[in-house]
Amino acid sequence: MKEFFKVTDLETVFHYIESFDPVGMETVPLNESHNRILAVDVVSDIDIPDFNRSIVDGYAVRASSTFGASDGSPAFITVKGTVDMGEVPDFSIKSGQAASISTGGMLPKGADSVVMIEHTEAIDESTIEVYKSVAPGQHVIESGEDIRNGNRILTAGIRLRPQETGLLAAIGAEKVKVYRKPKIGIISTGDEIVPVNETPKPGQIRDVNTHTLAGFILKSGGIPVPYGIVRDDFDSLFDICSQAVEQSDMVFISGGSSVGSRDFTIDVLSKLPDPEILVHGISISPGKPTILAKSRNKAIWGLPGHVVSAMVVFRIVVKPFIEHIGGLKSTPADKKLFPAKLSRNLSSAQGRTDFIRVRVIEKEDGLWAEPVLGKSGLIHTMLKADGLIEIDINTEGLDKGTMVNVIPV
Amino acid sequence: MKEFFKVTDLETVFHYIESFDPVGMETVPLNESHNRILAVDVVSDIDIPDFNRSIVDGYAVRASSTFGASDGSPAFITVKGTVDMGEVPDFSIKSGQAASISTGGMLPKGADSVVMIEHTEAIDESTIEVYKSVAPGQHVIESGEDIRNGNRILTAGIRLRPQETGLLAAIGAEKVKVYRKPKIGIISTGDEIVPVNETPKPGQIRDVNTHTLAGFILKSGGIPVPYGIVRDDFDSLFDICSQAVEQSDMVFISGGSSVGSRDFTIDVLSKLPDPEILVHGISISPGKPTILAKSRNKAIWGLPGHVVSAMVVFRIVVKPFIEHIGGLKSTPADKKLFPAKLSRNLSSAQGRTDFIRVRVIEKEDGLWAEPVLGKSGLIHTMLKADGLIEIDINTEGLDKGTMVNVIPV
Repeated sequence: MKEFFKVTDLETVFHYIESFDPVGMETVPLNESHNRILAVDVVSDIDIPDFNRSIVDGYAVRASSTFGASDGSPAFITVKGTVDMGEVPDFSIKSGQAASISTGGMLPKGADSVVMIEHTEAIDESTIEVYKSVAPGQHVIESGEDIRNGNRILTAGIRLRPQETGLLAAIGAEKVKVYRKPKIGIISTGDEIVPVNETPKPGQIRDVNTHTLAGFILKSGGIPVPYGIVRDDFDSLFDICSQAVEQSDMVFISGGSSVGSRDFTIDVLSKLPDPEILVHGISISPGKPTILAKSRNKAIWGLPGHVVSAMVVFRIVVKPFIEHIGGLKSTPADKKLFPAKLSRNLSSAQGRTDFIRVRVIEKEDGLWAEPVLGKSGLIHTMLKADGLIEIDINTEGLDKGTMVNVIPV
Repeated sequence: MKEFFKVTDLETVFHYIESFDPVGMETVPLNESHNRILAVDVVSDIDIPDFNRSIVDGYAVRASSTFGASDGSPAFITVKGTVDMGEVPDFSIKSGQAASISTGGMLPKGADSVVMIEHTEAIDESTIEVYKSVAPGQHVIESGEDIRNGNRILTAGIRLRPQETGLLAAIGAEKVKVYRKPKIGIISTGDEIVPVNETPKPGQIRDVNTHTLAGFILKSGGIPVPYGIVRDDFDSLFDICSQAVEQSDMVFISGGSSVGSRDFTIDVLSKLPDPEILVHGISISPGKPTILAKSRNKAIWGLPGHVVSAMVVFRIVVKPFIEHIGGLKSTPADKKLFPAKLSRNLSSAQGRTDFIRVRVIEKEDGLWAEPVLGKSGLIHTMLKADGLIEIDINTEGLDKGTMVNVIPV
């Protein structure tokens, strides 16, 4: 009755990411586009700005009028008028002339630069002294200098940060085409599991994984769709699983930690439409008994029942799959790993990738990663942890003081 | 007509954080508590688990029955029954006896440990051979081992990550007391500014800051409340500002980049109820012309009009204020700075703190921070940036290759 997993290594598991298609697109108003994944390239159809714009308060001039100006030998310049904000100046200037202008104002014809107000002194109502020369283009954003008409300014697959939303505002994008948020079904299994609002009888525990997984799904840009707790029998699991696969873009089956329920999780997955069992066991710790199946182009995960194992598998293995179907093309900066020094020696078995929970501690000499030890069924070890560190499949252990990359959790 | 700011240094600005009170609390259902700030300490009123629980599949035994067992000399043990998941076993075991048990099952009376199924072989229906000894407590989570009744398990002020939500589920917290999300009013000023849905005439530009600020507010846990664009005149700004201070927990006045509008921003702030102008200019670049005022215990910010300056000021200066009134007590891990090597020499003026936009590039020898240069009115420089690096007030510059901490944006 021994049980063997034909375990798959992590690299191979990640190769399956590309075998799933991203979800569809939808159009949302700009103010609902924050943090969504852009679904199309965006090309600007205007120059930004589309006029020569002052970036300081002062006087718009022809730069040549100021050449040689200094504290000892100021340039005398005639003020021809004032630029009203948001208006086209109804006058132009020539050599030796200036226009009073505020930050954001449009340069009048004839002006090519702006002298900062700090470098001037008003002599009378229509004359100023200029104490510092400016170069042509100085203190000005020229037409099209920020964004040029016809340029591709954003590429599909990026997450819209505030600055990208700002740029979309600048080009007048009232609506934005983004990927739908993937809907992720969560099925909790196990005869010993009761909902949060019930008091567990002896031998029972409350359903933790539905809630932690929902939180992780939200963090990964998905929409959690809980299907509740399913008893440990084939028909119940098959019915709810079929429904979840029909209604969601990805499905988690969590728990099923008894030998029996694990057995019929595989049976159930094998009976779904166009079933494929891609992975039955991964060479990671914790998280080895993870299942990945495919039906109707959707990933269905059998996640370990132990809370910590489920969280590690989610963070390390599942998250990139959700991001992929959600359309994200991640960049190095998205990884946000932060290096820290390991506070003690760690040993690891070869032939598997270990993920160790660590607490990040700030000391005078920088950040330290302190392993949080404890069984993978203990929730409190996950609370103490700020992140995970990886000990790869070919490493037997890590020495105290080694620089490690902390994966935030 | 020269203009002088009595600038405040960054450290002094941060001292004002404590002069604002956190917003009130509210109670939300557990499934809406993700990423919220916990408002009260949480004490568990149960042991978790509240029974001795197996964390493997195998046989519950008295450890002493297995002492000395090995491949060559197995222990013979009688299987007395099977533990049903979620049930209290209706039998107990003695020395030399075992109960078949699944992960998550309750140990029967008399058992103190579990032998993994991999280390056993069934001889007949009621007898197994055990090839490896276990210690008392092995492969078991004992009653109260994860969480003990009466212990404070969460402290007020933390952000609820998925794992904290999971723990709240475990103790049966159907509802959670959290801080309200602070409502932040956004007022855009400037006669040259038009809304996103209008086509700017020559000399005008669309309102960018309302949208970038809204995005940053959402990221910081607040609720953006846009008040639209206000013309550059005292009465309009006073009316809308009074309304915003009344209805929000914090207010941003963005833009007002002309000398005139800056002047009456201060005038308006000085006429609000119980006004205090705390800061008029900060010794940072970009972002110097930032105003911080207080009225009715609420912070009102005059933010620079240049988009990049506004973003830098938000990320560096304003964000900790929002987090504070939102109840967050941040930890070292919240900072999530990541070190990188600077790709070129940077000079800086002493007497101010510089924040340089950087792109993070992954090379074989690690992460590099590449300065993104360009005027602070150019949105595209902020798009290219993954973060900011700080050159402190007493540093004249940084050499290529220096390790810098990147503040993600």
